[in-house]
Amino acid sequence: MSWERVAIVGVGLMGGSLGLALKERGLAGQVVGVGRRKRSLTRALQRGACDEITTDIAAGVRKAEMVVVATPVGSVLSVIQAAAPVLSPDSVLTDVASAKSHIVRAAESLLGHEQLRFVGGHPLVGSEKKGVQHAHAELYEGATVVLTPVEGTDPAALDQVSQLWRSVGATSTLLSPEEHDTILAQTSHLPHLVAAALVNALARGWGRYSGPGFLDGTRVAASDPALWKDIFLSNATEVVRALARFRKQLENLENALAAEPEALERLLTRAQRLRQGLKPDSRAAQKSRSSKAKTSGSRSRRKRGT
Amino acid sequence: MSWERVAIVGVGLMGGSLGLALKERGLAGQVVGVGRRKRSLTRALQRGACDEITTDIAAGVRKAEMVVVATPVGSVLSVIQAAAPVLSPDSVLTDVASAKSHIVRAAESLLGHEQLRFVGGHPLVGSEKKGVQHAHAELYEGATVVLTPVEGTDPAALDQVSQLWRSVGATSTLLSPEEHDTILAQTSHLPHLVAAALVNALARGWGRYSGPGFLDGTRVAASDPALWKDIFLSNATEVVRALARFRKQLENLENALAAEPEALERLLTRAQRLRQGLKPDSRAAQKSRSSKAKTSGSRSRRKRGT
Repeated sequence: MSWERVAIVGVGLMGGSLGLALKERGLAGQVVGVGRRKRSLTRALQRGACDEITTDIAAGVRKAEMVVVATPVGSVLSVIQAAAPVLSPDSVLTDVASAKSHIVRAAESLLGHEQLRFVGGHPLVGSEKKGVQHAHAELYEGATVVLTPVEGTDPAALDQVSQLWRSVGATSTLLSPEEHDTILAQTSHLPHLVAAALVNALARGWGRYSGPGFLDGTRVAASDPALWKDIFLSNATEVVRALARFRKQLENLENALAAEPEALERLLTRAQRLRQGLKPDSRAAQKSRSSKAKTSGSRSRRKRGT
Repeated sequence: MSWERVAIVGVGLMGGSLGLALKERGLAGQVVGVGRRKRSLTRALQRGACDEITTDIAAGVRKAEMVVVATPVGSVLSVIQAAAPVLSPDSVLTDVASAKSHIVRAAESLLGHEQLRFVGGHPLVGSEKKGVQHAHAELYEGATVVLTPVEGTDPAALDQVSQLWRSVGATSTLLSPEEHDTILAQTSHLPHLVAAALVNALARGWGRYSGPGFLDGTRVAASDPALWKDIFLSNATEVVRALARFRKQLENLENALAAEPEALERLLTRAQRLRQGLKPDSRAAQKSRSSKAKTSGSRSRRKRGT
């Protein structure tokens, strides 16, 4: 499976890594990088994340079979709006934004509720770093990508988007846009808010006494504030619900600390068991991902379903 | 500077790493590993973290110039109690526990308030892993160790403990036991409680949608529950205060999310600036530590003060 022409709008960490992966694996004839700033686009071109660059969305996406919108969540809809009129009828649109229902429901209104060729997507990767300088071709190796089809989604479009991610080593999984936002509020948006609160609660001079637990736990607090403000606002209702669930758990721990040492140990044991059941930390996962990719690339790729 | 005989009581991740560092650098003639379980001691001996092992505290610490208590926080005092009667008058005692005022004040009562030769210590390193199988000689390279002398601390004992840590590559810094507990409640104990609450707030099946931010942020939730229950209980008052400061910051973020997008971005920007001012994440720090150690070992060691 390969594409003659893929357009990536927003060639930063996420878009740039996709471009590098497509080029390195020879999966796309031409990758067009589309963006607002000439300088970032030139950097993407120099890194080999794309073959052509343009600041004109319509010119960039015209004739592309696959258009991946990898801009911050706040500008995905305006990109879709600018791209829609010039797309050929069999082109497919997707995105990588961290909040989905707002975008997917608005895209339905923009593009029509039937035979929808926009498929919402969210690769569960990323970093506090941004920009194509941090992009790498293995970012999606072994990663999970959530796709959020709706009733009117064209099955062929969904299939093409899941093939795109599979071709760069990721596994895709399906959720409704609303399920996605409920779950990711808890597993991604809340931990960002918590990290910011942990850092902001430090008194002056206390930072030098932070050990590895604090540093890893607050790494994401170094992320781009404008980008994350938009993510929080796009999913505000669910983030508030996730906060309430978290507060309840924190209260359970505090009550146990005050009155019931045994209950405290039980709650900590529950957390230990649950955490040990999850994936290892992100760096270990990435390391094992790239070594797996090197040793058993095509075999493991064949085994992965949508 | 070197020691003829160092006793390490509790040869797990922390104690074992100290033993390995002392042996590898040729800083101690004999390292005695003291513990409760024969099996862990044998493993420590096999790994080269000590030269002799015993389950008899009195026998193990007798004739040692330096005794390092590296047991969980809950058993430090009973070890001091068992060791005190057989120690020679010029021996020095220290520990590595994560909560200090309870231990240091009780040690004063046990050993006398004047010419105190016990110095509380807390190396800001560690991991969710435990046991000598995870110990390594570079654990303390570039690390910060907080020492908590009190009014009656013998200055010579303090000096020897800071030389011990300097000799294995760490920098020591002084705080009162109470200052230590206030600050570490915020920078270490609170993040552990928060990680447990983040994990416990997941509904069944949501864990597979956790990205790198969640995994790094909750890594410490996999730590030993019994060990951490004791740490929380030893520092309960300060942990509750740290929780209150954290809740206030979380509330600020939530209020901004509900009503003031610009305030939200300001709070996130503050967190970003503060976090970028701290050390990098723990693995990057450790990596740069060991490469620095290799290239400029003795020079950087000479530069470090107490």
